[in-house]
Amino acid sequence: MAKKVCVVGVGLTKFGEHWDRGFRELAIEAGVKAIEDAGISGKDIDAMYIGNMSGGRFIGQEHIASLIAGELGLNIPSTRVEAACASGGLAVRQAYLAVLSGKHDIVLVGGVEKMTDLSTADVTTTLAGAADQEWEGYYGATFPGLYALMARRHMYEYGTTREQLALVAVKNHENATKNPIAQYPFRITVEDVINSTPVAEPLNLLDCSPITDGAAAVIVCSEEVAKKLTDKLVYIAGSGHATDTLALHDRESLTEIKATRLAAKMAYEEAGIRPRDVDVAEVHDCFTIAEIMAIEDLGFVEKGKGGKFVEDGETKLDGSIPVNTSGGLKACGHPVGATGVKQISEIVLQLRGEAGERQVKDARIGLAHNVGGSGATAVVHILERGW
Amino acid sequence: MAKKVCVVGVGLTKFGEHWDRGFRELAIEAGVKAIEDAGISGKDIDAMYIGNMSGGRFIGQEHIASLIAGELGLNIPSTRVEAACASGGLAVRQAYLAVLSGKHDIVLVGGVEKMTDLSTADVTTTLAGAADQEWEGYYGATFPGLYALMARRHMYEYGTTREQLALVAVKNHENATKNPIAQYPFRITVEDVINSTPVAEPLNLLDCSPITDGAAAVIVCSEEVAKKLTDKLVYIAGSGHATDTLALHDRESLTEIKATRLAAKMAYEEAGIRPRDVDVAEVHDCFTIAEIMAIEDLGFVEKGKGGKFVEDGETKLDGSIPVNTSGGLKACGHPVGATGVKQISEIVLQLRGEAGERQVKDARIGLAHNVGGSGATAVVHILERGW
Repeated sequence: MAKKVCVVGVGLTKFGEHWDRGFRELAIEAGVKAIEDAGISGKDIDAMYIGNMSGGRFIGQEHIASLIAGELGLNIPSTRVEAACASGGLAVRQAYLAVLSGKHDIVLVGGVEKMTDLSTADVTTTLAGAADQEWEGYYGATFPGLYALMARRHMYEYGTTREQLALVAVKNHENATKNPIAQYPFRITVEDVINSTPVAEPLNLLDCSPITDGAAAVIVCSEEVAKKLTDKLVYIAGSGHATDTLALHDRESLTEIKATRLAAKMAYEEAGIRPRDVDVAEVHDCFTIAEIMAIEDLGFVEKGKGGKFVEDGETKLDGSIPVNTSGGLKACGHPVGATGVKQISEIVLQLRGEAGERQVKDARIGLAHNVGGSGATAVVHILERGW
Repeated sequence: MAKKVCVVGVGLTKFGEHWDRGFRELAIEAGVKAIEDAGISGKDIDAMYIGNMSGGRFIGQEHIASLIAGELGLNIPSTRVEAACASGGLAVRQAYLAVLSGKHDIVLVGGVEKMTDLSTADVTTTLAGAADQEWEGYYGATFPGLYALMARRHMYEYGTTREQLALVAVKNHENATKNPIAQYPFRITVEDVINSTPVAEPLNLLDCSPITDGAAAVIVCSEEVAKKLTDKLVYIAGSGHATDTLALHDRESLTEIKATRLAAKMAYEEAGIRPRDVDVAEVHDCFTIAEIMAIEDLGFVEKGKGGKFVEDGETKLDGSIPVNTSGGLKACGHPVGATGVKQISEIVLQLRGEAGERQVKDARIGLAHNVGGSGATAVVHILERGW
């Protein structure tokens, strides 16, 4: 299929603990920045999609999409999309479909989450709502616990080592030092990770993505509109979305996210490319093991060899396929509903050559991979330079 | 624009207090019924949209769309859409856009809410999340309170009477006696309404829609697919969606839902019809005043004359424009995420001539109107018989 949809603007808040700012302020900052980056006016936007996981429990607020449209002074169609931590990527996909439908030309996609208004325990409980509440949550399973099961099995089946897991976090923190919006822009060592507080063995504190406030926005539009706005066209060349059971015990495998494999297949086929064609990727590293499974399931490396691939430095900024140049969820931060939109923003910056110190040289094709829960949703987008 | 998208199957659970059944059982029952009604198999479905307002707070469960896909044994794209009480109608619109995009052919739309697992006080607090939490909820405003403000102003500006409000509930309960899924299929009188427990003056208990468990599903598909399945084509002839500020104090008017007016305009223009062409309508009667405002804002009657229109019996089953033949939110029940999908189901049944005792004679064009919160979202669909 011919490429028809573009991304023409990106906007990001700083990721971190915004004690002094509210949900709506964060959303508006990112939205206005994206509008300015695209060189359009708010009045040009004809629809909005907002990714948000749990406004109801984090801030007592549902009906998020109308809230943000109202704050922007717009009466346009505005739709909240939720798929746990994949809410942002899924909002981008809905905007893509809306433009393809011919009903909308210029769509603002926002992702936003305000997580630090609750205690850490309440945040963990809220996040567990992304897993199967009746079969996992009520029995005490938390997300670190579920990913720990996957990590153990991956180590058992493929010989993945504790050090290899740690190296994912080390790399992502290194990348974060080059990203002005990152929550944790400092370096850590393998020893730091291995000696950090145990959370759910084998995962320690520094294997886990943090609790974050933040927002991201992108402008998605038809190729026709994009050509009037810029010479640097960034196309959405492929979009994939797949699901799996919420509960881990119902899955076929503990060492693969099947939804990622299916969503990637859909996106690669639509874009007409193979995994080896990807120059830069943002993948869903909610835990270190998640990044290792992601690079395998996305086809960057054979199943079971992800740990070694990381150890060999292939996913570093100067490696064969730089992964999570933004710092990833681990070090850039993980405001759950915003993450998928931030991933798209990072890829757009890379393709436009605007990623500063973390720029991947001559990146032409980028991939963004967003996961919900322990893998019950995966959304994969492939973006491509048009010049 | 040519009509291209059809509804080929509908499925409904009984609406009521389902103490013996869970969220997922309700969703699956409605989904399977819609699949059977369409004469397809689950494997034919290539995407799903689920309307749900507040699974996170009602049952501790987010990530609803993957949950339901997983329960059906499908790995297909499945997306939750939330816009408070308009979540269901908005899910139908997203399915409509997805089919128009060319990326999906057969889409299952579900709406589901399990509300009775919480206390009434907690339900009221959760529902207040559809209003502006910072500017309304934290100051104690509830939904009956917000609609009471609108009712008072409507009475002041247009002379709408207490009896006229009550007559909306009386009519909808009468219709519910003819609907096998209705929560409250019994008759009430104007005196019953006026003498029922005050909730927020002038609104009494019998002016308010109830707390309900329930699910509804419809199958949305391309015209091409529909023609292979049935001779009785029901087209989505028009779809409109608009938003407004969450907070009532920011609106231009207290006696009009601007989002309804805008969404209706969009839907009428797309369908190429006028309000007078509508043969049967389901409108959002979360409170009796809401139905009076709806029939005005949808253009069935001049602004301010809705009360008289109801009094004259024009909206009864044998009136000039039968409204809420299902019993409406008031008497059929209001499982918030399911309501918008149930409205579409009711219109499809009416257009197919399958509405039993409540059948509107020779209904050719139907309208469904779904509102979120106190009017910050409105979704309007126009359905049309193709034979």
